[in-house]
Amino acid sequence: MGRTSDAKNKILTAARTLFEQRGYSALGVAEICKAAGVPKGSFYYFFESKEGLALAVIDEHWTAERRDWEQVLNTDAEPLQRLQRLFEATEARQQAAQDSCGAVLGCMFGNLSLEMSNQADALRGRLQEIFEAQVAMVEAVVSAARERGEVAVADTHEAARSMVAQLEGQVLFAKLYNNPARLNTLWPSCRALLGVQDDPKAPVHA
Amino acid sequence: MGRTSDAKNKILTAARTLFEQRGYSALGVAEICKAAGVPKGSFYYFFESKEGLALAVIDEHWTAERRDWEQVLNTDAEPLQRLQRLFEATEARQQAAQDSCGAVLGCMFGNLSLEMSNQADALRGRLQEIFEAQVAMVEAVVSAARERGEVAVADTHEAARSMVAQLEGQVLFAKLYNNPARLNTLWPSCRALLGVQDDPKAPVHA
Repeated sequence: MGRTSDAKNKILTAARTLFEQRGYSALGVAEICKAAGVPKGSFYYFFESKEGLALAVIDEHWTAERRDWEQVLNTDAEPLQRLQRLFEATEARQQAAQDSCGAVLGCMFGNLSLEMSNQADALRGRLQEIFEAQVAMVEAVVSAARERGEVAVADTHEAARSMVAQLEGQVLFAKLYNNPARLNTLWPSCRALLGVQDDPKAPVHA
Repeated sequence: MGRTSDAKNKILTAARTLFEQRGYSALGVAEICKAAGVPKGSFYYFFESKEGLALAVIDEHWTAERRDWEQVLNTDAEPLQRLQRLFEATEARQQAAQDSCGAVLGCMFGNLSLEMSNQADALRGRLQEIFEAQVAMVEAVVSAARERGEVAVADTHEAARSMVAQLEGQVLFAKLYNNPARLNTLWPSCRALLGVQDDPKAPVHA
């Protein structure tokens, strides 16, 4: 029992690394099994297909990332401070990836969204749900800031979508230039999106 | 002579369609030649490798897109109107793709940026140059608007980068949701990024 779940974890870990380094389309099950050091028969014991494996990798990654986002967004800190920390954490995460493996890995969900284009509808559906969840998490904090009169947005849902789009676009550039420092403009940009016009480096006040 | 350049065009057209539909990594030269109806020998007469072909496809696409951007951005219209038209044209182009082939194709440069991650340095370098050129084109118009006192940005280069990032992020979502109408928030978001606070639907005045 310990042995089989060990094999499953090996496959998940190898798949995650390979998806991050080489994308989804170009990978085959044989190659994933080889990298995991697991026979191909084990693969089909745990996963129906490469798509099934990708769904599991996505869910595992979102479970971890959702926890990170909740830790930052669901606190007693000022709403604008919580949003600022989300973007700082995004930069720190990409910096850590570059420090450990030499490359900015980008956002797994954004990478897969652009790569799979018109194929793999199950994956696309799951990615849509994840981005909806991210927008909802950000929107809740934007609403809190609006209730306090700190931001000037007419539509909190649109504002949250623009902020997540800004995050995805800037992460794309951080990856393309292999430069996590690209992300230090995320928070000033999102303050502008929210109509917060004062100095973006100043501490947020009540 | 007419015959060989015809073969080259067939390869470029087939490659462009296949890159858009299936991405770069998963494609092989044999498959591209088959779709183009051209023998593999011809391929290596025109292109050194799949990467060489991809560079040619990227350059051809950027030549056309740069012309579109220049037509919109280098006019005598008000600066803010020129920027607004750029985003409207982006939405119209994705809508046209969806109308003709059923799918929002996204931005070829963004798609390739996220897909190729750490491989293919020649392609990455070229994509970096293209995004730098896009940022410079947008920045020129943002500067014109700032000279007229119409926008409130401290750093026009940062503002232009945020606008192109916003475009890439929103195009990512338009592709993921196969919904070009997602892009109708691009201009309001970019007005906010520029610190233009009035009604985004109102006509821009001098």
